[in-house]
Order: sequence, then C-alpha cells, then structure tokens
Amino acid sequence: MKELQDRILQEGKNLGNGILKVDGFVNHQVDPMLMDACGQEFAKRFASLGATKVLTAEISGIAPAVSTALHMGLPVVYARKHKPITMPDQVLLTLAPSHTKGRTVELIVSPEFLGGGEKVLIIDDFLASGQTILGLVRLTEAAGSKVVGIGALIEKTFEGGRDALRPLGVPIESLARICAMEDDRITFCD
Amino acid sequence: MKELQDRILQEGKNLGNGILKVDGFVNHQVDPMLMDACGQEFAKRFASLGATKVLTAEISGIAPAVSTALHMGLPVVYARKHKPITMPDQVLLTLAPSHTKGRTVELIVSPEFLGGGEKVLIIDDFLASGQTILGLVRLTEAAGSKVVGIGALIEKTFEGGRDALRPLGVPIESLARICAMEDDRITFCD
Repeated sequence: MKELQDRILQEGKNLGNGILKVDGFVNHQVDPMLMDACGQEFAKRFASLGATKVLTAEISGIAPAVSTALHMGLPVVYARKHKPITMPDQVLLTLAPSHTKGRTVELIVSPEFLGGGEKVLIIDDFLASGQTILGLVRLTEAAGSKVVGIGALIEKTFEGGRDALRPLGVPIESLARICAMEDDRITFCD
Repeated sequence: MKELQDRILQEGKNLGNGILKVDGFVNHQVDPMLMDACGQEFAKRFASLGATKVLTAEISGIAPAVSTALHMGLPVVYARKHKPITMPDQVLLTLAPSHTKGRTVELIVSPEFLGGGEKVLIIDDFLASGQTILGLVRLTEAAGSKVVGIGALIEKTFEGGRDALRPLGVPIESLARICAMEDDRITFCD
C-alpha cells in the first residue's frame, strides 16, 4: 500500500537488530487517518473470507485491528498481556516469545469473547518472526474456532514469519513488505 | 449518549468495589461501530477548542481516542506504561495510582511526539478518581503544552474525578455518567 510505504520511507528509522521505529504513526503516536485507510484496505482484501471476529494483541495491534473491524462491521478482541480483574479466573492463555521485548509474554483471552465456531481474522501491526501471531492462532484453536486470514501492516520478510504461518493455509496479507534494512536504507520487496 | 448507556445497561456488570465490567464492548472485546459513534460525539462536543493533538493512556483509552482523533483529523498519542526500546532515553514520565490495578503505574510519553505549544484533548475510557487523567495533564504541562478539554466514555461520579479535574478550568465531557452502582442496578445521572 503506497501510502503506508511512503510514510515508512519518510519517518521510519532502522534502529539496528531488525528493529524498525515507526512510533510516529503506528505505535506511540498514531495517525488515525492512515490507520483508517489501512483498515479499509484489509477489509477489501479479506472481504470474501466470511470472518466473524477480528483478533489482535495489545498494545500496538489495537489501532489497525479496530479500524479493520469497523470497515468489516465485526467485533474485535485484543488479547491482554496481563489478566485484568474484570476477567474471569478461567481464561485462554498462551506464551509467545517477543523479539522486541527480549522475553516471553503472555497472551490472554477470555472465553466469554472467543468461543467456538468463530471464523477469526488476525490483524497485527508487525509480521516479523510470526511468534505473536502464532500465539493468537493457538488461542483461537484452543477456543474451538478457526483462523481464516492474517493481516499485518508491516512485514519484515527476512525474519521468516510468513514461512512459519504458511502451514496454516490461510491468506496472509501485509501492506508494506520490507525485504531489507541496511543502515538508513529500507528496501521494500515490490 | 443513549447508545452507550443502553449498552452499559444491557452488558455492563457491577463487580463490586466500584468496578464496572464493560469488557464485552470497551476494553477486551471492542465494538468498533460503537467506538466510532462515541468518537464522532466527542469530535462534535470538542469541535470549538482548537485542539491540535489527542492524548490518551494505553491500553483501553486507545480505541476511543483513535476514533475521536479520526473524526477531528488529529494525531493521537498514547502514553505507554512501559518504555519500549524504540523510545529515546530521555522521556516524559509521571506516576499515577491505579484503583483497578491496585498499584501505581508509570505513564511515559516521548518528547518527540508531545512537544511545546500543543493544545491537547485528553480522551480515556473511564473517568473515576481522575488520577490517570491528572497524570496525562502533568505530562502535557511538562512538555510545555496545554490541556484544552477532557473526555471519557464512562464517568463514575461517585469517585470524585470531576472535582479533581475542575480546577483545570477546561470542558469535561463524559458520554455515560453513572451516579450509583448497587448490586445489579446501574443508575445514570440523567
């Protein structure tokens, strides 16, 4: 998606170790008009899947997932990383290693809001190693539901996430595919 | 706002100790259509303030703040509770006691995205004791900017937040004002 790629070229910064800083428009400051356009694009690409729910992980997945869900007319659930007191004692929980955090994080969903028989569209800000998204897939399957599609704003193809997700056999869409980051140069695949 | 009040009456649960469970449509599962309507309502109520930026706190402030910012055509910044590695070493940080978490949390904003001279509209999911919002006010003032308005989806008037914020002399708007929660009965002020 040209609008997102242009913004990454203008404002994204390669911090080294595969870390791309996009916190001016994605994950600290958010450009809601850009998020809306991304949500619209995801809604178009995933229109035919019959999804019944959008699933993401807090924190930075929330903005793109809510925008996508709005354009699809679906509810969205964000997996929590800490169990809030409003959640029942019995939850769905999985562990996912986080490269950017350098540790394993918990992903927790209440069975009240992710039950059986749902067709789940997973949306997140990044597709890197795919570990967070695989965690969301495990939660979906543990709930007795099925993942029907996966979307990420930004994919770093050199971290192998797409290969890890391919066995699921569902459409994987990313709006900006980065093939290489070297010093100040960010190279898109297309 | 009738739509939000109706939803609270249908799905909200009083968990005791002043805790209102609304995680079916606000802060775990999100109804993006309801959030969009709330954002539109805030945009209307705050249209005349000349706001230049929307500020909120992660996690559950993000959805209503992004919706509001979209309808106002403004960027939105969410204060982080843990400093991510993409943030510079020098940050704006304040502490805010959290009633629902039973502890003090950090609120962190990068000076890259909250500088001087901004007219800041604060949006959050709840106005209860007002402590989180007062934290966001301190961050705004430390950045050399000015708070011009405060909006919350749900106000619990019996926790005194409005009194704590009144000295700021800015408009305070909430879309559902709860005056009492007793057993299974939630009573709105109007």
